[in-house]
Amino acid sequence: MQNDTLALAQALIACRSLTPFDEGCQEILINRLEKIGFGIERIRCGEVDNLWARRGTNAPLLCFAGHTDVVPTGPINKWDSDPFKPEIRDDRLYGRGAADMKGSLAAFVTAIEAFVARHPDHGGSIALLITSDEEGVAIDGTVRVVEALKARNELIDYCIVGEPTCVDHLGDTIKNGRRGSLSGILTVKGIQGHIAYPHLAKNPIHLAAPAIAELTQTRWDEGNEYFPPTTWQISNINGGTGATNVIPGEVTMLFNFRFSTASTVESLKARVHEILNRQDFDYDLKWEFSGKPYLTPRGNLVDAISNAIRTVVGIEPELSTSGGTSDGRFIADICPQVVEMGPRNATIHKLNEYVEVKDLEQLPEIYRLTLELLLLR
Amino acid sequence: MQNDTLALAQALIACRSLTPFDEGCQEILINRLEKIGFGIERIRCGEVDNLWARRGTNAPLLCFAGHTDVVPTGPINKWDSDPFKPEIRDDRLYGRGAADMKGSLAAFVTAIEAFVARHPDHGGSIALLITSDEEGVAIDGTVRVVEALKARNELIDYCIVGEPTCVDHLGDTIKNGRRGSLSGILTVKGIQGHIAYPHLAKNPIHLAAPAIAELTQTRWDEGNEYFPPTTWQISNINGGTGATNVIPGEVTMLFNFRFSTASTVESLKARVHEILNRQDFDYDLKWEFSGKPYLTPRGNLVDAISNAIRTVVGIEPELSTSGGTSDGRFIADICPQVVEMGPRNATIHKLNEYVEVKDLEQLPEIYRLTLELLLLR
Ligand SMILES: [Zn+2]
Ligand SMILES: [Zn+2]
Repeated sequence: MQNDTLALAQALIACRSLTPFDEGCQEILINRLEKIGFGIERIRCGEVDNLWARRGTNAPLLCFAGHTDVVPTGPINKWDSDPFKPEIRDDRLYGRGAADMKGSLAAFVTAIEAFVARHPDHGGSIALLITSDEEGVAIDGTVRVVEALKARNELIDYCIVGEPTCVDHLGDTIKNGRRGSLSGILTVKGIQGHIAYPHLAKNPIHLAAPAIAELTQTRWDEGNEYFPPTTWQISNINGGTGATNVIPGEVTMLFNFRFSTASTVESLKARVHEILNRQDFDYDLKWEFSGKPYLTPRGNLVDAISNAIRTVVGIEPELSTSGGTSDGRFIADICPQVVEMGPRNATIHKLNEYVEVKDLEQLPEIYRLTLELLLLR
Repeated sequence: MQNDTLALAQALIACRSLTPFDEGCQEILINRLEKIGFGIERIRCGEVDNLWARRGTNAPLLCFAGHTDVVPTGPINKWDSDPFKPEIRDDRLYGRGAADMKGSLAAFVTAIEAFVARHPDHGGSIALLITSDEEGVAIDGTVRVVEALKARNELIDYCIVGEPTCVDHLGDTIKNGRRGSLSGILTVKGIQGHIAYPHLAKNPIHLAAPAIAELTQTRWDEGNEYFPPTTWQISNINGGTGATNVIPGEVTMLFNFRFSTASTVESLKARVHEILNRQDFDYDLKWEFSGKPYLTPRGNLVDAISNAIRTVVGIEPELSTSGGTSDGRFIADICPQVVEMGPRNATIHKLNEYVEVKDLEQLPEIYRLTLELLLLR
C-alpha cells in the first residue's frame, strides 16, 4: 500500500491542475474507485470538476473530502525540479500539490482500497467529495456538491478533509473547526475643506480615530474551549485627496472579523453598529460574509482519528481551529462531525513544495484505521 | 487719479503674466516710478523677476509689496470675456489678476504719484517690493529680495501688502498677521501578517488610532488676542496592501499645523513627539516647515490704515489673521509692522475674476492717506 500511495501521488502531481482545472486527476481517482465498487457521480459546474463517489447505502456515512486543484507555482526557475514532474530527493516527494493535497488524495484511495480488501462487507458507507475549485474562488466547488446532496437529503455523518494540518510532525494537529470570516467596508463621512479653515470642514480621519480605537479595544467574546477569542482587524485605510492642504470628505476602511462560535454574525454586526452609531459622524458600511465558522467537538470522529494517530504515529494530536477558512465550512452544513487532518503544511503554496515519503506511508494507515474504528463497530 | 488707476490696472491685466512670469508688468511700473524719482533695482532669480524701488533715504521706510504673477485661468471658454483682455461690465473690471493683485499694484502707483505730487519733500522713504513668484513655489520671489535687503541692513519700518483681503466691502478686513504652517509625514510601523493570525502581526492602523485621537483632542494653545487657537489636521492617511487578508506593516499620515504666535515650531514638534513616544509603536516622522507665523499688533501702521479706511470708505475695518500663508511672512523678517489690505477676494483664483471699478477709485485714496498719516508727521 505504501509504494502504491507514492505512485498515485506522483501520477496526480503530473497533472497540471492549476486551479480551477482538474486536468484528469479525478479520472485517475475514479478509475481506482470504480474497481472497488464505488458509484461515481461527476458534477461539473462551469470550468470546475467535482466528484461524488459512494460505496454502500447504510449509515453511518464516512466521507473523505479534498481538492485536486493546486495554487500557481510562482517562478518556475526557482524550483529545484519541475513542479509538475514529481521527483523524490532525500526521502521527500517534491511537486506542486504534494502536500496540498494530492498526497492526501492518494492516501484516501489506498486507505479505502486496503480497508475494502480486508472488510468487503463493512458497515456504513464510504464516500469521496472531491473538487477542483478549493484554491480559487470556491464558488463552483464543494459548496455545489453539498447543495446537491442536501437537496436530496443525502447527509454525511463523518467527514475527514485531507488538508495539510500538521506542523512539525504528521499527526500532531487535527483541525476540528475553523473560525468564521466577516468583512466590512466602512466609509466615515466628513465635510471636505481647506486645511487653513478647519472650522468649515469636518475631518473624517479625526472623527474615525476614536471609533477605530474603540473597535480595536473591544473584546468581542472570550472564545471557548475550542476557539480563541474573536479578532477584528483593519486591513486597509485610505483617506485624502493627495493634496496636503485639503481636509478630505471621507475615509474608507476595510476590516475583517475572524470569529469563534462564541459570537454570531448578527451579534458582531449589531455591536459594530452600536459603536459606530454612538459616534458623531455619518457612515456607510457594506458587510460581506465570507465564511461561516464550524466546530466539531470531541466525539466519535475526533476520538477515532486521534486513536488512529496514536496507534500509527505514536503521538498525541492537538485540536486546533486556527488559520483561514476551508471547505470544511460548507460540508459542516450537512455533516455534524467534520475534521481536517493531512500532512505537514510547512511548504504549501511555496516553492519546492514537498511531502515526506514516510508521511505517505503513515497517512493511509491513519485513514484506514479510522475507517475501521468508525465502520466496524 | 481714479481713471488713471483703472487704465494702469487694464495695462497690467493685458500682460499674460502666468506665474512665475512677469511678462512686462514690472517695466510698466518702473516706467511710472522712475518719473517720480524712484531708484530702481531689478533682482532676477531664475525665471522670476523681482523689483525693489525706493524713493528717499530717510526713516521711516514705508513699503508697498505685491506680485505681478497670476494663477492659471482654468477653462478659458468658461470665462465671459478673455481673461487677458480687460473688460468693464456692470462697473466691474474683469480679467485674471484684476483682484489678485494687479488692481492693487495700479493703486500703489497712483497713490504714490498723488502723494509725491502733493508732498514732493515728504518725510521718510517709500518703496515697492514686487515679485513674479508669489502664486507659485515662492522660492525665487519676495524671500530673495528680503535676503538681499537684510544682507545690506536695509530694513523696512512699515509694509502694506496689496493682497485682496476684503470680504463684503472694500476696507472691511485688514490682515495683521498670518498663522504659521508646519507639516509632517508620520509613518507608524507595525508588523505585517496574515489577518487570520493577528497574534503574529502588529496592526499599525490599530496602533495609530489612539494616537490620532489624542492628537486630535489636544488643545495646542488658546490662541491670543489676534490669533485663533492652533489647529492640527490630517490631510491624508494610507495603509494596507490592497489585499483584504493582510495586516499591513505600516500606515502613513500627512498632517499640518496652522499655528498661532502662542506656539512655536519647537513647542509643537516637542508635544507631538511627546504624545507619539508614549505610544506602543515605532514611527518615522519627517517635518516640513512651510511658513512662519507673523503678527503686527495694533500700532502706527494698523492705526494709520484703519484711519484711512474710515475716512475714505466710512467703515470700521476688522483685524484678521485667518487664511493661508502669504509673502507677509517673509517681509516680517525685516519689518516689525506688516499688514495686508486690498480689494474683495470673492473671485480670486476663479473664473470671471473681477475688481469693482469703485474699489479702484477708493483703494488708491486709502493708500495715499496712509502715506500721509505715516510720512508727514
Ligand atoms: Zn488545500
Ligand atoms: Zn495674491
